[in-house]
This record gives sequence, C-alpha cells and structure tokens, in this order.
Amino acid sequence: MTRHLLSIDDLGPDGLSEMLDLSETFIEVTQREIPKIPALRGKTVVSLFYEDSTRTRLSFEIAAKRLSADTMTFTVGGSSVRKGESLRDTVQTIAAYGVDAVVVRHQAAGTPHRIAGWIDASIVNAGDGRHEHPTQALLDLVTLRRRLATTRFDGLRVAVVGDSRHSRVARSTAKALALLGGEVTLVGPPTLLPESLEGWPCAVSDELDPLLAEVDVVYLLRIQHERQCEALFPSLREYTTRYGLTVERAAQLKPDAVVMHPGPMNRGVEIAAEVADGPASIITEQVTNGVAVRMAVLWSLLGSGGIVA
Amino acid sequence: MTRHLLSIDDLGPDGLSEMLDLSETFIEVTQREIPKIPALRGKTVVSLFYEDSTRTRLSFEIAAKRLSADTMTFTVGGSSVRKGESLRDTVQTIAAYGVDAVVVRHQAAGTPHRIAGWIDASIVNAGDGRHEHPTQALLDLVTLRRRLATTRFDGLRVAVVGDSRHSRVARSTAKALALLGGEVTLVGPPTLLPESLEGWPCAVSDELDPLLAEVDVVYLLRIQHERQCEALFPSLREYTTRYGLTVERAAQLKPDAVVMHPGPMNRGVEIAAEVADGPASIITEQVTNGVAVRMAVLWSLLGSGGIVA
Amino acid sequence: MTRHLLSIDDLGPDGLSEMLDLSETFIEVTQREIPKIPALRGKTVVSLFYEDSTRTRLSFEIAAKRLSADTMTFTVGGSSVRKGESLRDTVQTIAAYGVDAVVVRHQAAGTPHRIAGWIDASIVNAGDGRHEHPTQALLDLVTLRRRLATTRFDGLRVAVVGDSRHSRVARSTAKALALLGGEVTLVGPPTLLPESLEGWPCAVSDELDPLLAEVDVVYLLRIQHERQCEALFPSLREYTTRYGLTVERAAQLKPDAVVMHPGPMNRGVEIAAEVADGPASIITEQVTNGVAVRMAVLWSLLGSGGIVA
Repeated sequence: MTRHLLSIDDLGPDGLSEMLDLSETFIEVTQREIPKIPALRGKTVVSLFYEDSTRTRLSFEIAAKRLSADTMTFTVGGSSVRKGESLRDTVQTIAAYGVDAVVVRHQAAGTPHRIAGWIDASIVNAGDGRHEHPTQALLDLVTLRRRLATTRFDGLRVAVVGDSRHSRVARSTAKALALLGGEVTLVGPPTLLPESLEGWPCAVSDELDPLLAEVDVVYLLRIQHERQCEALFPSLREYTTRYGLTVERAAQLKPDAVVMHPGPMNRGVEIAAEVADGPASIITEQVTNGVAVRMAVLWSLLGSGGIVA
Repeated sequence: MTRHLLSIDDLGPDGLSEMLDLSETFIEVTQREIPKIPALRGKTVVSLFYEDSTRTRLSFEIAAKRLSADTMTFTVGGSSVRKGESLRDTVQTIAAYGVDAVVVRHQAAGTPHRIAGWIDASIVNAGDGRHEHPTQALLDLVTLRRRLATTRFDGLRVAVVGDSRHSRVARSTAKALALLGGEVTLVGPPTLLPESLEGWPCAVSDELDPLLAEVDVVYLLRIQHERQCEALFPSLREYTTRYGLTVERAAQLKPDAVVMHPGPMNRGVEIAAEVADGPASIITEQVTNGVAVRMAVLWSLLGSGGIVA
Repeated sequence: MTRHLLSIDDLGPDGLSEMLDLSETFIEVTQREIPKIPALRGKTVVSLFYEDSTRTRLSFEIAAKRLSADTMTFTVGGSSVRKGESLRDTVQTIAAYGVDAVVVRHQAAGTPHRIAGWIDASIVNAGDGRHEHPTQALLDLVTLRRRLATTRFDGLRVAVVGDSRHSRVARSTAKALALLGGEVTLVGPPTLLPESLEGWPCAVSDELDPLLAEVDVVYLLRIQHERQCEALFPSLREYTTRYGLTVERAAQLKPDAVVMHPGPMNRGVEIAAEVADGPASIITEQVTNGVAVRMAVLWSLLGSGGIVA
C-alpha cells in the first residue's frame, strides 16, 4: 500500500488488477444520471503542470470534481517559479496550504518521486519526461479489458508503433501490459526505438508490415513534431509510408484487432482518419475511461488510505 | 425544442418570449440571499474560447456555478490545439470526458454549428465571428423589457449605432428585436454598415442626428480599435463627432429613451462618460441580467431537456 | 465595523486582536478531517490580480473554497483590460455580475481604496504597490502569537531586514506589530530603507550584526531581483555579506529567537537554506496559517456583516 502513484512498478500485477477493477466501478459512476459522489468532499487536489497539457489536466480536474474535491491549478508561467523560487520551495508552499494531492507533470524524469520525498501530500505522476505516465497505462488497460471482455492479457500480442524512445506512454503501457501477460513489440525506425531494452519488457522491430496479421492490438504513438526538430526520421511522409496505420494496413489486421492512440492524433501521419474513426478504434473510449481511472486513483489515495497494492 | 443555442433563429418569436420569461425567473433567483440552486449538480459545463473574452466567459461561469454545475475552461493557448490537433478532435476529446454543455467562442462564423454536428453535448454559441451572439441578444431584450415594463416591442424604434458590419451583437440583437416587433435602424458610416441587408431585418442610415428625437432606444456598439487597423473610418475623433452619443446628442433624445451598450465601453468615443452613467443608461443592468439569462439558457438545455422552442 | 480590509489601520488594536483570535478558530477548522464549512455557500469571491502572484491568489482561493464560496479569477492578460477598458468599468462590470467580494492586487498604491469607493462588494487588499498587504500582516502575527504562546507583543523586538522601502509586507507587518506593542527596527542599506519614517512606527539601522543578540524575531524580506534593475545595492553577494541571515549570524541569535520570511525565498541570498529549514524558522507555518487568516477575513466580511473592528 503506497501513498503515491508514481510508476506502474508501484502497483505490481495484483495491485494493477485491483486498480483496473476499481476503475470499472468508477466507469459505472460516470454513467449515472448524476455522475458525482461526495467521497472527497473537503479534500483539495492541486495540478502542478510544468508542461502544457490541457487534456490530461482537464481529465484529472473533472475526475476530482466528480469526487467533490476542490481543485486548483498551479500555473507555472505566472508564479513564484518565474521569480526564481526552487521547485522544492514551490512544492513545500503548496503542501503548506494543506492540499491533499498534487498531480505533477514535469519535463524531468523522476521529479514526482523527488516531490514525494519532500511533502506529505499524495503525489500522482501525470507524466515525467521520458519516464512514466501511469494513469495513461491504467486507462489503456481498462479500455482494452472492456473491449476484449477479459481481465488477463496472457498471450495478447501488442505492437506499440512510433517514438517509443522518447515516450513515457509507451513505457508505462508496455510495462502494464507485460505485467498482465501481454507480449509487446515496439515498432519504429531504429532512431525512435529505445537505445537499451533495460526496463522495457518488450521485443523490438523496425518493420510494421510483417506484424499486421499477427497482432491483437496496434497502439500508435503520437509523432511529436514540436519536439523532434533534430531529424530523427527523414520526413513525416516517409514515416507514414513505413509506419502509418493507413487504410491499406488496417485492412491486413485480424478481424477483431483493436486500434489505440493516446491522443492528440496527427490524422494522416501516424493514423489515417478513416482508421481513427473506424470500428476497430477504441480511441474515444480511452479518453472517456481516463476520467474514471483518475477518479479511481484519487479515491484510492485520498479516500481509503493508499492505493491497494 | 432544440438541444443547442446557436442562433436567435433557433428560437422563433414564441421561443424567444419564453426564454425571456424564464430569464426573469432566474433574475429573481440571483436576487436571493443565497443565489444558488442545485438544478445542475453533477453536470459539467466547459468554456471553449478561441478568442479572449473574460467578460462573457466569467458571466457564463458564474451562471453555471449558481446552478451548481462544475465548470472548466479549455484555454486554447496552452493545449493540444497548439500541437496541431484539429478542432474536431479537440471537441470530440472534450465530449469524451463526459461534459454536458460546451460554451463556444470562435473567430469563424458557423463554428458552433459545426461542433453541434460532431458531439452529443449541448452547444451554446458565445459569439462566432461576425455571425451571432444569441445570449447577448437575450440579455439585451430582457433588460429592455424590464425597463419598459412590456413584453412586446411592437413599434419600438431602436437605433443600433456603430460597426454593425462586423458585429455579431448587432446581428443577434437586431434579429431578436425584430422578432418581437421592434423597428431597428443600423446607423454608421457606410463602411461600417452591412454590405447587404440579407438576414438583417433593419433599415440603415448614415446619419444619427435626425433619428435622435424619434428613437426609443439607442444601442451603441463598441468601436473595436484592436480589429480595425484597416482604416474603415478616418479617425476616432471624427467618429465621435458624427456618431458618438455625446451629452449634447443625449439631450435631444425623448425623455424616456433608453441607452444601451454591450461593453466594454470606450468612454469618450462611442459614448460620453456622463451618458454611460446617466439615468437613461441601462448598461449595468445588461451585465447583471446576463448572468440570469445564461442560467436560464443552461437550465433549459441541461435541466429540462432542450430549450423551450 | 467596516465592509472592507484595505489596511491594517482599518482594524485598530482591538480589531486586530479580534481578527487574530478569529484566525485561530479557523486554524482549528483547517485541521479537521473535512476542513470545509458551508458558511459562504452561494457567495462569489473574485480574484482581480493585476500583478502575478500565484501564492497569494491560491491561498485566498483555497480559503474561499473551504468556506464553500464560489471562486473566480479575473486574469488581466486576456481580458477587456487589454481592450482599453478603464479600471473603473472593469470593476463595475465584475460587481454587476453580483459578486460578494473582490480580492485585489495592483501595482498602484491606493487602488483597492479607489475600488471600494466604486462598488458595493467587499474589497480585500491583497497587495497594492508599496503600500499595504494586510492579510500578510495578519498571518505573520497569528503565526508569531502561536509560536510565542502570547497574544501581546509588548517589548518584543523585531528586526525587519531588507528592502523595506519598496515593501508593502514590511509596512503592514510593522504597523501591526507596533499596534500590539512590538518594537520594530528596519534594517538594510540606506538605499533600501524608507526615505521618511512617516507612517512607519519603527527605528532604522543600516547594520544587522549589532542587533542579532538582542532581537526576538528576524523578519527577512525577499530581495526582488526582478524589480531592482536600478542598482540600489552593489550586488547580491555584497547584500548577503552584510544582511543575509547566514548560519553564522543565526548562531548569534537568542536561543528562542524566531525567523520569518513572507516567501518566495531566495535561499543563499537573504537567508541560508539551513536557517530557512532550521528549528527557529516558522516560515512554513506562515504559509499554512495564511489560509486560515484569509478564511477569517472573508468570513468576517461576508458571513457576519463586516470585520469586527
């Protein structure tokens, strides 16, 4: 039992399954006529985002509000941070206000762990550098579980396609899939695959086409134009030619194969619009279930004394 | 009965009158010791503003909170939008969070209509390009109704003075006034009057002075320095000389004529400070009633299954 | 009994003591399992900040939420202010929404007083230019009271070290200490001391070292790099050499002397990290008590008809 959610490693296979079960309970809550419960009334959840992410921030904020918590956003632009205050002092100040949980996104791997060592509030890692994004992994797995109508992924074959080297989503989701028996292959040009597979329970491949007829899930990563100024691949067009899930490639997938993407999508680059909106896609469900997963996480940390792990 | 409020045309004369009646009910709510009701508890209202407008956004936000809804703002600057996500994906993501209403402001006419075609949530148009701003029209009319102590405007003569060509406020309010029998004249230099009167149930004039003794209402539009770099009129001083509601001009109005402005005002340009603060002005009441009108709209859309129309 | 909190002068010694007593009551509330009370349900508190201050804004926002008030932030960047609207029109618009309190920070001394003359809502001064920051003074005094286990400060010797000339914190806290019997000495280079002591119930000194063994409290002000482009002192290093509370200087303090700082700190400049985190420091308690103090102020203004004074 921990007070924080910093990494998928915090959970272990049993803890992971329990969080997924709990998330299903909260999916049921979000489908009620009034999707709000008083579980965290009087608790305060602060979002501390050093990187822009309206999507993740809003998802956590809606989750917290549906648990009746008070929410606040610490915007890094207009703040003491700009006045040169250290991360530690900023965080200790937030803690001193009496907040119960801090949802942290930071460009440096390990920042949420450091913060957890400084203050008493529960820390939720909402993405730290290339390292982890555990609530993304939880929402990916719960969405997959519901689509496949199974709680175990033994022998499930998953291709994670794209820039896994720089992706915290890839790392967290691959770890979580492997914990429950999934077999993950990271696919992409060698420049976008991890330099070492230490910590990655995965195979690798620089070809997507041979895998299409074999995999049960294609998980497409976002090509991040804005980060990849340093030409790690020749061009977007060439990327799409080799790794994009085009209509033609999607037609080679097994009939019940599933397509996933963490968003925001570059339609026409890593995924064709028709595929994104097609019957194999569970991309919208990922977004929807993200709210319930974050409710489950906040409830576990603040409502019942630690994540069950 | 519609699920959205996109245009004054959605309402028709009966629907419009019913929304104004309902707004009066909510004006009564806002005057209570505790001006808050639990009508929309558990509902989520998101503001999606692609143009700055603290005034309109705050007015909707207060309205939603007074109905006990949860509110969130999707700021366009720090978001997926900057990462190149399409409007459609942004909106579908917001919808996937399970929100109930999206209040949209966008610089392109028709955007709220497009969004309404993509998602299930109720859409409220909070201003789209030069097109419409229907809640402004509702607050204008309810404020006028209360001042004039009448629910019909048959034969009421209204001068809408300023840049009607680029004004969604002028279009929505003129339409709504005409629906209830008002006779609207758009006044301004030809460069600021509509190129065609199609869709404008109005007369036009490039002279204000001859109308002063005849009109019941002078509705002043804001001169938008920040948009009108392209010199559509010679100078602010000249604009004021010909079209500003100066103290001298105000003295020529009928004794019970009413002065309105959607704000923010340029005191000394389109309206003299003394007139803005004088007894004929109902400008502050417009702002106050805006909250009640938005409560009525949100309640109609989310609390009782569609606007009554 | 006043409707606003603009200056420590509004309170007088009895009113000040009553606010400190009330703050202690709210400290007790913030320590409850559910630190939230319904006292201000249906009330709306707007933060109107013309200067960045995430810390103060969040502290007020948490305070308001714990009283069950609705909160909103009027951001000056993206708003009518940029469209040239006057301060008065902005404020009157906010008032017209029906808000109950406006928490104002502004770079010009006296702005909260001016606003209080224009609208009916209660105004709380959250810092105006070099003038005052009364809730900072209240949180300083309540924190000191609790540490010293006394409600009077007769004969208490306090050194306020740093740029008192430009500091509203110094002015408000010095006034409040003096009201309850404290003896305050402003310490710093002559360029950072007030040009006149009118309104400052204080002694001055340009030397810190002779005071170290005598004072009961060292209150360090933040050196504001970002404001002091005009070289008011030779260098940060020289400032630290003469006025920084280093480990060596702290060792010369009386055993039960107390160290305070309004934050954010420049560790290694005006205060050594070891001193900031050491047993004499009550800096974190200042932050924590700030929330309770602001609850007390908002409750006094909105919940019971004026501050008790």
